[in-house]
Amino acid sequence: MKRTAGELAEFLGGQLEGSSEEPIENVADLDTAGAGDLSYAETRFQGQVAASQASCILISEGQFPSKTTILVENPKLAFVRAAEWLVPPAEPVPGVHPTAVIGEGVELADGIEVGAHVVIEDGVRVGASTVIRPGCYIAAECCVGSQCVIHANVVIYRGAEIGNRVTLHAGVVIGADGFGYVRDDNALLKFPQNGYLVIEDDVEIGANTTIDRGSLGRTVIEKGTKLDNLCHIGHNVRIGGRTVIAAQTGVSGSCSIGADSMIGGQVGVGEGARIDDGSVIGGQSGVLNGKRSRAGAVLWGTPARPLKDIKLQLAYVARLPRMAKELERLREEIRKLKS
Amino acid sequence: MKRTAGELAEFLGGQLEGSSEEPIENVADLDTAGAGDLSYAETRFQGQVAASQASCILISEGQFPSKTTILVENPKLAFVRAAEWLVPPAEPVPGVHPTAVIGEGVELADGIEVGAHVVIEDGVRVGASTVIRPGCYIAAECCVGSQCVIHANVVIYRGAEIGNRVTLHAGVVIGADGFGYVRDDNALLKFPQNGYLVIEDDVEIGANTTIDRGSLGRTVIEKGTKLDNLCHIGHNVRIGGRTVIAAQTGVSGSCSIGADSMIGGQVGVGEGARIDDGSVIGGQSGVLNGKRSRAGAVLWGTPARPLKDIKLQLAYVARLPRMAKELERLREEIRKLKS
Amino acid sequence: MKRTAGELAEFLGGQLEGSSEEPIENVADLDTAGAGDLSYAETRFQGQVAASQASCILISEGQFPSKTTILVENPKLAFVRAAEWLVPPAEPVPGVHPTAVIGEGVELADGIEVGAHVVIEDGVRVGASTVIRPGCYIAAECCVGSQCVIHANVVIYRGAEIGNRVTLHAGVVIGADGFGYVRDDNALLKFPQNGYLVIEDDVEIGANTTIDRGSLGRTVIEKGTKLDNLCHIGHNVRIGGRTVIAAQTGVSGSCSIGADSMIGGQVGVGEGARIDDGSVIGGQSGVLNGKRSRAGAVLWGTPARPLKDIKLQLAYVARLPRMAKELERLREEIRKLKS
Repeated sequence: MKRTAGELAEFLGGQLEGSSEEPIENVADLDTAGAGDLSYAETRFQGQVAASQASCILISEGQFPSKTTILVENPKLAFVRAAEWLVPPAEPVPGVHPTAVIGEGVELADGIEVGAHVVIEDGVRVGASTVIRPGCYIAAECCVGSQCVIHANVVIYRGAEIGNRVTLHAGVVIGADGFGYVRDDNALLKFPQNGYLVIEDDVEIGANTTIDRGSLGRTVIEKGTKLDNLCHIGHNVRIGGRTVIAAQTGVSGSCSIGADSMIGGQVGVGEGARIDDGSVIGGQSGVLNGKRSRAGAVLWGTPARPLKDIKLQLAYVARLPRMAKELERLREEIRKLKS
Repeated sequence: MKRTAGELAEFLGGQLEGSSEEPIENVADLDTAGAGDLSYAETRFQGQVAASQASCILISEGQFPSKTTILVENPKLAFVRAAEWLVPPAEPVPGVHPTAVIGEGVELADGIEVGAHVVIEDGVRVGASTVIRPGCYIAAECCVGSQCVIHANVVIYRGAEIGNRVTLHAGVVIGADGFGYVRDDNALLKFPQNGYLVIEDDVEIGANTTIDRGSLGRTVIEKGTKLDNLCHIGHNVRIGGRTVIAAQTGVSGSCSIGADSMIGGQVGVGEGARIDDGSVIGGQSGVLNGKRSRAGAVLWGTPARPLKDIKLQLAYVARLPRMAKELERLREEIRKLKS
Repeated sequence: MKRTAGELAEFLGGQLEGSSEEPIENVADLDTAGAGDLSYAETRFQGQVAASQASCILISEGQFPSKTTILVENPKLAFVRAAEWLVPPAEPVPGVHPTAVIGEGVELADGIEVGAHVVIEDGVRVGASTVIRPGCYIAAECCVGSQCVIHANVVIYRGAEIGNRVTLHAGVVIGADGFGYVRDDNALLKFPQNGYLVIEDDVEIGANTTIDRGSLGRTVIEKGTKLDNLCHIGHNVRIGGRTVIAAQTGVSGSCSIGADSMIGGQVGVGEGARIDDGSVIGGQSGVLNGKRSRAGAVLWGTPARPLKDIKLQLAYVARLPRMAKELERLREEIRKLKS
C-alpha cells in the first residue's frame, strides 16, 4: 500500500523531520533499503542511518538533516506496526479447490481458502477466513478457529482444538500419540493415548514442529505463545501464554512452562519439570526431570542452574590449571619447611 | 466397549472390592476421571484415590471402602491391558480412496485402508489390514507388513522393508539417503547410497523422525523398538529390539545400539559407536565417535561416561569455590610459618 | 551398467592386478560384496581384503594374489567415481502426472518429471530435467534450476530461488517465516518476514530440515554445501560453499558460517555468530550469540572454545578428586608443622 512519510508519522504518533510527502510502500533493513522503503535504527545502529538509502527511517534519537526521519520511542516496535500497515498479509482467496477431499458434516465458515489435495475428515469445523494450504490433512472432529493460516502439508490428528489467528507452518504435526510404554516380560506395551490437544488463540508454530496430544488429559499451548521450527512438545504439557520457544527445543511429557517465558534453542526439559512464569532458559540447557524453578528464574547449562552460578562455575573451571600449579608450589614450600 | 467392574477384575485376574456391576467404558487419570471411567493408582498416588471420581480404580495396596477398586500387582500394566480391551484401536475401513494413485504390480492384501492422495509406486506389497492415511508416498519396490498404521504424509523411499504391526507417525521419512561425501579438489562428491532399510515387527516411530537407509549394506530397527518424535537415525545403524529412544535423539552412521536399552531425549551418538544391550543413556548425552560401551552401562554427559563418575565430577566442580578459598588459606598459613 | 575390471582400471587411471575381464556391475562394502561387485579398502581395512567376495577391490597398497585389484591413490574417492559410473542415478521420466495442479504462467523446461499430487503455483519456473516427486508444494514465484531432485512432500514457500543440481530430501521446508517477535504490552507482535531465500547450485539438504527465508534481506546457502536431516537454518543466515553440516544442527538468525567448514551434529549456533572459512565444530557444541571465530578454528563444547582448551579443561576436571585429596594432605601437614 502506498503511504507518505507524513501519514506514517501520524499513524505512529511520531515526530517527522524532512519531507512529509516522501512516498513509502515497503520495508527493509538499513543496508538494503532503497527508494520507497521504510527502515528503522535502534540506538546501536545510529551510525548506519546517514548511509542508508531508505526513504524514511524510524529513530529514537539523533539528528539526520539530509534524511527523512520519524522520531519514536521504540523504533523496532514502531517498525513492526508500520510494516503491518504498509504490507498487510495476503487475504484468503475464498473457495475449496476441486481436488480437496471434504468429509461428511464438515462445517466451513465464510471466506475460507482450502488448497489443492487437502483432506478434511468428517465432523471438522473451520472458522471464517482461515487459509488451509495444499496437502494438509485434518482428521475427524478437529476444530480450527477463524483467520488461521495452516501452511502446506500440516497434519492434525483427530480431535484437536485450535483457536483463532493461529499459524501452523509447513510440516507441523499436531496431536500425534504421546510417547509412553510399559515394559512387560519381553515386550513394550503402549500406554493409552486417548487424550486431546488445545492450541489457543494467536499461537504460531514453526515448520516441522511436533506437538503430541495428552495421553490421558490434555496438552495445552496457551494464548499468544510462539514456537520455532523443529520443536517437540510431549504429551500433557502445558505452556503458558506469550512464551517464546526457539528452534529444536524439546519439552518432555507432563511438563509445565509458565507464561511470558523465553526458552532458547535446543533446550531439553525433562519429564514433569515445572518452569514458572517469566523464566529465561539459555540455549542447550537441560532441565532435569521433575525440576521446579521459581518465577523469573534465569537458568543455563546441563543440569540447568541459575545463570550466575553457571558463570561462576565456568570461571572457576577456567582457573583450574592455575590452581593445580599453586597446589604444586605449596607442596614444594611445605617440603622445604619440613626439611 | 461397555464392561462391568466384575468383568474387568476377571480379565485382569485382580481382586474386586465394591460394586461388581459398576459399568466401565473408558479410561482416564485419577484427576479427570468421571462416571464410567477406569483409572489406576501407583503407590505414590495412593493419596489421590479417595478423591477420584473414577467408577473403578486399579490399586496395588490399601483399602478404600467408598470406592470400587481392583487389587492387582502392577496397576499401570493392568491399566494398559484394560485400556486395550475397553478402547480397542479403530478398525481399518477397507478400500482404496479414488484419489489414491496406485502403480503397476502393486499387491494390496485384504482389509487394507488407503487414504486420499496416497501414492503407491510400482511393485509395492502391503499386508492385510494395514492403514495408510492420506498424503503418504511409498516408493517402488517397498514392502509393508500387515496391521501397520502409516499416518498422514509419511514418505518411504524405494525398496524399504517394513514388518508387521509397525506404526509410523505423520511426517516420518524412512529410507532417505545417508549423509556421506568425499572431498575432491573443490567439490564434495556423494558417497554411493545404494543400501537398504529394514524395520522389523512392532516398531513405532514418532512424528517427523527420519531414518536413513544403508549407504552400502543396511540400516535395521529390530523388533519392538520405539522411537519418539524428531529423532534422526543415520545410515547403516542397527538398533536392537525393545529399545526406547526419546525425542530429538540423533544416531550417526554405522552405530549400533543394543536391545532393551533406554536412550534419553536429545542424545547424540557419534559415528561408529557401539552401545551394548540393556544400556541407559541420560538426556542430552554425547557419545563420542567409535566409543564402545559394555552391556548394562548407565551413561550421562558429554563426553558420555558412567553416571556415577559424572555425578562425582559435578559434585567436585560445585566444590571448586571452596577449594580455591582453602588454597588461599593454606598459602597464607605457609607464609606465616615461613616468617 | 556392466563393465569389466579392465575398463574400470582405465576409467580410474589405476593399476590392475588379476583378471581384466572380470565383469563388474554394482558396488558394495568388503563384507557384503559378492560376484559382480566392486569394493574398496582404505589402509586400515587391508586385513579384510583377502576374505572379501568382491569381484574387484580398489586398494592403495599391498599384494593380494588371489584377488582382482586396482591400485589407486585414494580408494574411497576412486570408489565414489566408479560407483557414479557403474550405477548412474535414475533418469527422470518426463511428464506431468495428471493429478498435479499447475498454476498460471508456470514455465516447465524440457525433460521435467512432476509426480502425483504435486502443486506448483502461479509464475513458478523449473529448469530442464528436474524431478519433483509426489506431494510437493512449490508456492508462487519460486524458481527451481535444472537437474534438481525434489523428493516427496517438500514444501517451498513463495519466492524462493533454487539453483541447479540441488537435491531436497523428503519433508524439507524451504523459505518459511523467520522467528522474530517484539514484545508490546501484553502480546508478541510479529517482526516482518518479507525477505527471501537463495539456495545455490549443487546443494543437498537432508530430510525434514527447515531453512527460513530472510526477515528483511536474504538467507543464502552457497554452492556445493550439504546439510543432513532435521537441521534448522534461521532467517538471514549465510552458509559458505562446500560446507558440511551434520544432523540436527541449528543455526540461529543472522549467523554466517564460512566455506569449507565441517559442523558436527546437534551443534547450536547462537544469533549473529560468525564462523569463518575452514572451521571445524564438534558435535553438540554451543556457539554463543555474536561469537566471532577466525578461519580454520577447531571448536568444541558449550560455550564452544578451541578443542585443545576444552580437552585440557576436561583433563583438569578429571584430576579434581586427586587435587581435593592433595589439598587435604597439605592442610594436615601444615597443621603438623604448626604444632
